[in-house]
Amino acid sequence: MSRTVYLNGEYLPEEEAKISVFDRGFVMGDAVYEVTSVLGGQILEFEGHMARLQRSMDALEMTGNLSRDEWLEIHRELVARNGIDEGLIYLQVSRGNAGDRDFHYPPAGTPPTIVLYTQAKPGLADDPKAQKGIKVVSMPDLRWHRRDIKTVQLLYPSMAKMAAEKAGKDDAWFVEDGFVTEGSSNNTYIVKGGKIITRQLSHDILHGITRASLLKYAAESQMEIEERPYTIEEAQQADEAFYTSASAFVMPVVEVDGVAVGSGKPGPVALRLREIYLDESRKSAL
Amino acid sequence: MSRTVYLNGEYLPEEEAKISVFDRGFVMGDAVYEVTSVLGGQILEFEGHMARLQRSMDALEMTGNLSRDEWLEIHRELVARNGIDEGLIYLQVSRGNAGDRDFHYPPAGTPPTIVLYTQAKPGLADDPKAQKGIKVVSMPDLRWHRRDIKTVQLLYPSMAKMAAEKAGKDDAWFVEDGFVTEGSSNNTYIVKGGKIITRQLSHDILHGITRASLLKYAAESQMEIEERPYTIEEAQQADEAFYTSASAFVMPVVEVDGVAVGSGKPGPVALRLREIYLDESRKSAL
Repeated sequence: MSRTVYLNGEYLPEEEAKISVFDRGFVMGDAVYEVTSVLGGQILEFEGHMARLQRSMDALEMTGNLSRDEWLEIHRELVARNGIDEGLIYLQVSRGNAGDRDFHYPPAGTPPTIVLYTQAKPGLADDPKAQKGIKVVSMPDLRWHRRDIKTVQLLYPSMAKMAAEKAGKDDAWFVEDGFVTEGSSNNTYIVKGGKIITRQLSHDILHGITRASLLKYAAESQMEIEERPYTIEEAQQADEAFYTSASAFVMPVVEVDGVAVGSGKPGPVALRLREIYLDESRKSAL
Repeated sequence: MSRTVYLNGEYLPEEEAKISVFDRGFVMGDAVYEVTSVLGGQILEFEGHMARLQRSMDALEMTGNLSRDEWLEIHRELVARNGIDEGLIYLQVSRGNAGDRDFHYPPAGTPPTIVLYTQAKPGLADDPKAQKGIKVVSMPDLRWHRRDIKTVQLLYPSMAKMAAEKAGKDDAWFVEDGFVTEGSSNNTYIVKGGKIITRQLSHDILHGITRASLLKYAAESQMEIEERPYTIEEAQQADEAFYTSASAFVMPVVEVDGVAVGSGKPGPVALRLREIYLDESRKSAL
């Protein structure tokens, strides 16, 4: 059965979900997105993703956002129509189509292009990789400098993931001016002496929804948190490392640039935080 | 009459030229492009643009490029069908659509998405701005660090042009580590004591087709050329400034960050180079 896609007010078979070749998302990378997880047919971190979407659109002076309730209805409708128990909902808003390619923004009132679809991921919460941990390689961070705006300009992260896998590893961590910024599509952490260390928010990194919740749950569990940049060498000498993202939740990292982190196995802090995160985000799912 | 667009082997009315919402050009910024000028119904710098397209695709490991002759036929067919005397041909190649969103490249053999269309620009060669010169403001260069690959990740150039116009100026020049990289969609030059100074090629700037031809014509005219970075202050103290691009050819810049360059009017070197460039590129047009 064909998947149902939402496009500008319509629910369409995926083969029919098409946009103009003049759409600014296609010709200018002028679009923002969110990816939200579904567990047990319910939507995780909905409010956080909607708040960040609005933040991204505001940063780009994009107008025409839907209301929170409209978004929720579309998310739920897609979950129902596509029978998603565990999976992802992808949401993209582009600045729309003014009928021709132009560096200038389209005239005020040009409607944005709004696309949503689901991706079924049975077993999402029980990813065996979380029990084994993943291996990363560092690469220079060549992305643009407004990584806090979640745009679709994802070519470099895509190139980096391909290069990491070509090197026999799972993913890439980006380094700029000697310090880790973040992973190719996730926020990164190290643990040293019981303390969780993660880079502070700025234009340099994505303001992860999972990151914000994780730090809240960690603080509630009396864990010590330090927000500051750290180097690859510090990560290699840490007791543990992990990353967070909306689709991987909390993922242990057991090797950085060929060096085992800690015991070379997922650490207790990462595994405990994964458990807490999954419990808590299921509780608040909609 | 509706414009004709080329899309994956078909000539379509522009309203019908649509691509999948899963296309990697739309969801990942994973696409490259070229813009070629048409004067007198003939295509300027065709060989240069085709060589750069191949270079961009090679840099991204994109396959499925058309042959030089196939490209020429499509370019000419669009010029004929749309009755273009003066204007532009826009060409975009994305990594295609593997049927779903994924950071991983699609399987080998997935066809690229190929789109071309024309933009009629009557008077393109006689732009009155070239006689008056344009005013620019500097902005930090926040783009990704492979600007030599001509990708559609153009959101920052678009934002910069909007910001420049909001500031009452015509365009933006980007600055990184204290030196001008290039304009928002063009290569930049200053002239001092008869010498043409322009930043050397690297990953930091686009390898302009117009730039390469201009430097060749300048050398043939016994003009002295120095390829090195320069600052905004040096530009403000220069005798002349200008930029080159496929659609603007050679454009005098008469003000940088509120300071008049030289006489505050288009300089003789820029105007002479514009004349030479238009003459020569018309001669080699196809």
